[in-house]
Amino acid sequence: MASNSFGTLFRITTWGESHGSGIGVIVDGCPAAIELNEEMLQKELDRRSPGSSLYTSPRKEIDAPKILSGVYEGKTTGAPISIIIENNNVDSSKYEDIKTLLRPGHANFTYLKKYGIFDYRGGGRASARETAGRVAAGAVARQFLNRFAIKATAYLSAVGKVDFTGTEVDRAFLKTSPLFAPNPSAEAEFIREIESAKGADDSVGGIVSFIIENMPAGIGEPIYAKLPALLAYAMLSIPASKGFEFGEGFRAASMRGSEHNDGFINIEGGIKPSSNHAGGVLGGISTGEPIFGRVAFKPTSSINIPQKTVDIEGNSAEFKLPAGSRHDPIVAVRAVPVVEAMSLLVIADSFLLNCKP
Amino acid sequence: MASNSFGTLFRITTWGESHGSGIGVIVDGCPAAIELNEEMLQKELDRRSPGSSLYTSPRKEIDAPKILSGVYEGKTTGAPISIIIENNNVDSSKYEDIKTLLRPGHANFTYLKKYGIFDYRGGGRASARETAGRVAAGAVARQFLNRFAIKATAYLSAVGKVDFTGTEVDRAFLKTSPLFAPNPSAEAEFIREIESAKGADDSVGGIVSFIIENMPAGIGEPIYAKLPALLAYAMLSIPASKGFEFGEGFRAASMRGSEHNDGFINIEGGIKPSSNHAGGVLGGISTGEPIFGRVAFKPTSSINIPQKTVDIEGNSAEFKLPAGSRHDPIVAVRAVPVVEAMSLLVIADSFLLNCKP
Amino acid sequence: MASNSFGTLFRITTWGESHGSGIGVIVDGCPAAIELNEEMLQKELDRRSPGSSLYTSPRKEIDAPKILSGVYEGKTTGAPISIIIENNNVDSSKYEDIKTLLRPGHANFTYLKKYGIFDYRGGGRASARETAGRVAAGAVARQFLNRFAIKATAYLSAVGKVDFTGTEVDRAFLKTSPLFAPNPSAEAEFIREIESAKGADDSVGGIVSFIIENMPAGIGEPIYAKLPALLAYAMLSIPASKGFEFGEGFRAASMRGSEHNDGFINIEGGIKPSSNHAGGVLGGISTGEPIFGRVAFKPTSSINIPQKTVDIEGNSAEFKLPAGSRHDPIVAVRAVPVVEAMSLLVIADSFLLNCKP
Amino acid sequence: MASNSFGTLFRITTWGESHGSGIGVIVDGCPAAIELNEEMLQKELDRRSPGSSLYTSPRKEIDAPKILSGVYEGKTTGAPISIIIENNNVDSSKYEDIKTLLRPGHANFTYLKKYGIFDYRGGGRASARETAGRVAAGAVARQFLNRFAIKATAYLSAVGKVDFTGTEVDRAFLKTSPLFAPNPSAEAEFIREIESAKGADDSVGGIVSFIIENMPAGIGEPIYAKLPALLAYAMLSIPASKGFEFGEGFRAASMRGSEHNDGFINIEGGIKPSSNHAGGVLGGISTGEPIFGRVAFKPTSSINIPQKTVDIEGNSAEFKLPAGSRHDPIVAVRAVPVVEAMSLLVIADSFLLNCKP
Repeated sequence: MASNSFGTLFRITTWGESHGSGIGVIVDGCPAAIELNEEMLQKELDRRSPGSSLYTSPRKEIDAPKILSGVYEGKTTGAPISIIIENNNVDSSKYEDIKTLLRPGHANFTYLKKYGIFDYRGGGRASARETAGRVAAGAVARQFLNRFAIKATAYLSAVGKVDFTGTEVDRAFLKTSPLFAPNPSAEAEFIREIESAKGADDSVGGIVSFIIENMPAGIGEPIYAKLPALLAYAMLSIPASKGFEFGEGFRAASMRGSEHNDGFINIEGGIKPSSNHAGGVLGGISTGEPIFGRVAFKPTSSINIPQKTVDIEGNSAEFKLPAGSRHDPIVAVRAVPVVEAMSLLVIADSFLLNCKP
Repeated sequence: MASNSFGTLFRITTWGESHGSGIGVIVDGCPAAIELNEEMLQKELDRRSPGSSLYTSPRKEIDAPKILSGVYEGKTTGAPISIIIENNNVDSSKYEDIKTLLRPGHANFTYLKKYGIFDYRGGGRASARETAGRVAAGAVARQFLNRFAIKATAYLSAVGKVDFTGTEVDRAFLKTSPLFAPNPSAEAEFIREIESAKGADDSVGGIVSFIIENMPAGIGEPIYAKLPALLAYAMLSIPASKGFEFGEGFRAASMRGSEHNDGFINIEGGIKPSSNHAGGVLGGISTGEPIFGRVAFKPTSSINIPQKTVDIEGNSAEFKLPAGSRHDPIVAVRAVPVVEAMSLLVIADSFLLNCKP
Repeated sequence: MASNSFGTLFRITTWGESHGSGIGVIVDGCPAAIELNEEMLQKELDRRSPGSSLYTSPRKEIDAPKILSGVYEGKTTGAPISIIIENNNVDSSKYEDIKTLLRPGHANFTYLKKYGIFDYRGGGRASARETAGRVAAGAVARQFLNRFAIKATAYLSAVGKVDFTGTEVDRAFLKTSPLFAPNPSAEAEFIREIESAKGADDSVGGIVSFIIENMPAGIGEPIYAKLPALLAYAMLSIPASKGFEFGEGFRAASMRGSEHNDGFINIEGGIKPSSNHAGGVLGGISTGEPIFGRVAFKPTSSINIPQKTVDIEGNSAEFKLPAGSRHDPIVAVRAVPVVEAMSLLVIADSFLLNCKP
Repeated sequence: MASNSFGTLFRITTWGESHGSGIGVIVDGCPAAIELNEEMLQKELDRRSPGSSLYTSPRKEIDAPKILSGVYEGKTTGAPISIIIENNNVDSSKYEDIKTLLRPGHANFTYLKKYGIFDYRGGGRASARETAGRVAAGAVARQFLNRFAIKATAYLSAVGKVDFTGTEVDRAFLKTSPLFAPNPSAEAEFIREIESAKGADDSVGGIVSFIIENMPAGIGEPIYAKLPALLAYAMLSIPASKGFEFGEGFRAASMRGSEHNDGFINIEGGIKPSSNHAGGVLGGISTGEPIFGRVAFKPTSSINIPQKTVDIEGNSAEFKLPAGSRHDPIVAVRAVPVVEAMSLLVIADSFLLNCKP
């Protein structure tokens, strides 16, 4: 089945494998006359790039996006925007020794079950490298949404046992934090937690928070394609994600109605909710308040501790990472710009779906 | 936008309002020659019906489903299956007094923003009554999946501060529990928690767990339409849901890779994961192990405590439930069969999408 | 596969069999605040109703549409509009004798191949009765498009060897012609042709022309979902249709570029094409000129002449219509309101797809 | 709106402009383990390439397809197949003088109305060059369908006033004919017709016939996504196409039921239609007989005769092709491999949609 596309009217299609000739994304449905150039994409890609942070994979990738279509004289034309990022510094030889092993926590087992075949090099299509295409597409969505002053921000709110959910978000600090931490205290504790996992040749999970601001009221669909349903779908499609919540989320389950309900008030600017436990959505449709939520990520599957497994013939084996291969001790850090990109893509699509004739 | 359909190849479309002439669902894409009759639907609808439980709304509904098409001589024909449930015992008069009030926690504010108009009677289209159509459709999916011995089970795992996640599920007990509690201890504590909220004229949230068993390996799509992404979309489309997780879910964020990774073993029946932290899915595709997860529900928005709000003109007002109107102190109970139905619909669709030519 | 829906944002889903309890349609995505009532639907359904014309099947159907949802106080609410038409006067007993025969020109052979099962009564799901749902939905689309003064008109332009393509369309006459003939001369000749076929216990084919007027320029999509591609899809989905053309159509194949090309002129109201060989569309997008085309229909498959066939076991047989069963000598007449409805549905959907944010 | 994709389970997405850096196509949903390499694509692209025929545009393009993803060790992996064809020999300078003129028969007027902007160079996105992506994707579909011995063949059946519809198709001759003519007599007359138009600095239309063979019975969907409806949509999406018919097509409109109906017979291999007026489809579903039809193409819009038009400001102007620019006197020739490709894409998709669980 064709499952490499996301969105209805603002739709992206990604392609490419970790160790193939490159990866790419087609952004179809972006309105015309939006300013767009490669620098805008580069800026976003640099944020998710390994090496941008101390604790992300040190493999040096030069994620240099090229726009091959859909932009003319610095503006979108309404035609599909094809973006390609070539793979460089790819050395598949070190995967030779482990190519028949079923890797714990990885998708090669299920790809083999589904397709009867898999490209074992660096995770193939299942590699998180696919998310570079999402980030590039998110940069396009951001340009479009800038017209309406709508913005999406994501940050790391928890690492392992350290949870800073609900902490103050220092926007200026966030912009410079290599861990996308919301403030210096969070960053310091996150670093300790990551160092601890890394020192044990292990990895650790984390939680990414997101917030969408300046969203007008009345956007989104009722019943099935509710805004939170689309966001949940978007977030659970990110590799390594395990959960999604919005507004009070799982905490709402332990609340009383009298605590959770938001009343309405009439202030300058009109009628609006008097609080925002709902997370900016009622009945699937935006209330005009910020839409916020959290996404859980499992610890990186690739660890330096040997693990028991079998090969594709079923023979017992021990899985060890190839010598010299290095992996992030945490995937949640690099997931931050991806969560942001997916929010932007959902909102851009919802905007187009909600135009009135 | 057309947003009242769910699914790709096994697709449902629901229609109807709480206080209109009835509600219904079209099940399109169900394979031919599946046994189906109204009793099968009735049995499932009885489970979600208000009045089936002590703590669900005592309004007496006779949810009597009629199959209008797609079934001939007790079997599906491949044609769309139209199911209608008439609304009875509908008295909209008591909504007259509150029809201009913006109800805290309800969707009439956002519907008004989106459509400029709303059917205020009993929640209109936004009423949880729409989920009866999902349950009826889920019964059709269940009949189809019975062919492959695949089954889905949901139960109430938390109410308010009482959380029985991870407790033993006594299947026999579950079948008879009006609260869909997994065992007698859970039921007793859930009752206390609900009674407490009810006694305070308040409501309480809850969590529904689900498990899909006998799922073959290799089903599901990579990248976007991952099984967990489709499940997340399905669950967040249920009214009042606030979060979704699968496998270890949010707990995975605080785990180490060495704890979370599942190895592989070769036992009779072939290669399979040696544990199931992953929740039955790797890279979006089923591993053959049970797929399980949890869905969070907020407390019922309708409570008997007066709440501050405004009317559609912006005048301050106090919102009180009409005298004689009665509402569930908890929505999570009635959500249990809905969660089960949505799981079945996702799996039926995934099955059809994964056929090999 | 789910194939009973048509449209993207303005989407219909039909259900029901010829001899089941009824048929129906869900119109999902119709904007809110459009005036709609059952009389509007009845008026359109009466036009396609057998018995409305001398030469359509005299089986007396009372196509009385009921609106079950999506309309409140005479206006659409944005919720799905469920319309049901009960089947009356259904007597399936006469199909008993022929239930195992493969009917020449009918779909029971292919349904059997696809589904392994079929509902033989009156054509089951393959019956042209399904088109009543399309006509009802077309009436909803018409109400929406009235806002923009866009209108669609269809008429019978050829019957058998008699072709009035290009003739003058007398709108007043067309409204009263039971054959949807464009003028009295056409009607007279069409009657002769139909009488001749009928007298020979045979049937005859025909061509339906359509025209869409007051369409603004710039509506429609390039590349795949071109307006003519959507119209072609819509028209070829009508039972018994065999061909579609727009603008000069097949005649364009024998033209020179210098004849076919339309120049542009600047007159009051702005720039527009100076002629309209193109049929109102360039590159898939509307030019602002009328969109027109033609749809070919085969002769009715049910004829009173015995035909050679086999039964489902493969035994040779002669197929005769059951005594007392009566069928239209021409399907193209009843197809006229269906072609009109399908045009309206395509245009309504295109309108919503072309809103600018 | 996202309109650059075609297909449901076997889906293509094309991108690129005539005078941009290149064009490309993503083939998503192709099953795994299909043999595929660049030579297979090259072979098909060479057939549609300008210069392959005497009467197609002499601009020398080197359509060298590169496969960037989805193929590993010569076989498809189930991942999306990204194919890119770079644009060479592109000189946009000659379009400078005409960049503000509305070109008769071209889409720049409608693109301007829709997008407010257009890439005037060589037709931009509206260029027939986009069809190279379709042909490459068709080659992938052909490889998949080879597994089932299903094949699609297209040929030129009419040019201008010369119509060879129904003529004998000499398969060996067809393979070598630069005009895709079905036999030597047809080719000779087609050449005369094209020479005549060319000599008058004019262009001429044509008709392309197609036939799909070895199609099993029972493939396709009823009601909306009927096989002929999907084929019609596919064909009307090809630039310059004006009509589609299948089976007897428009001729069916002048036939009697007794002539048109196909009976059924039981011969070795089972029950099948005794003739094939229907064109291989009944009720939208394949009968097992060949599926055949015709597609009409208008004359090339670019002619060497000066034409009256206006510029984008509305000033009267005369449109002349830039000196040195040369264009096909007929588009129908190059459309032949495109019609073939679109048939293959429709059938591949239908196959996947019709798998039984």
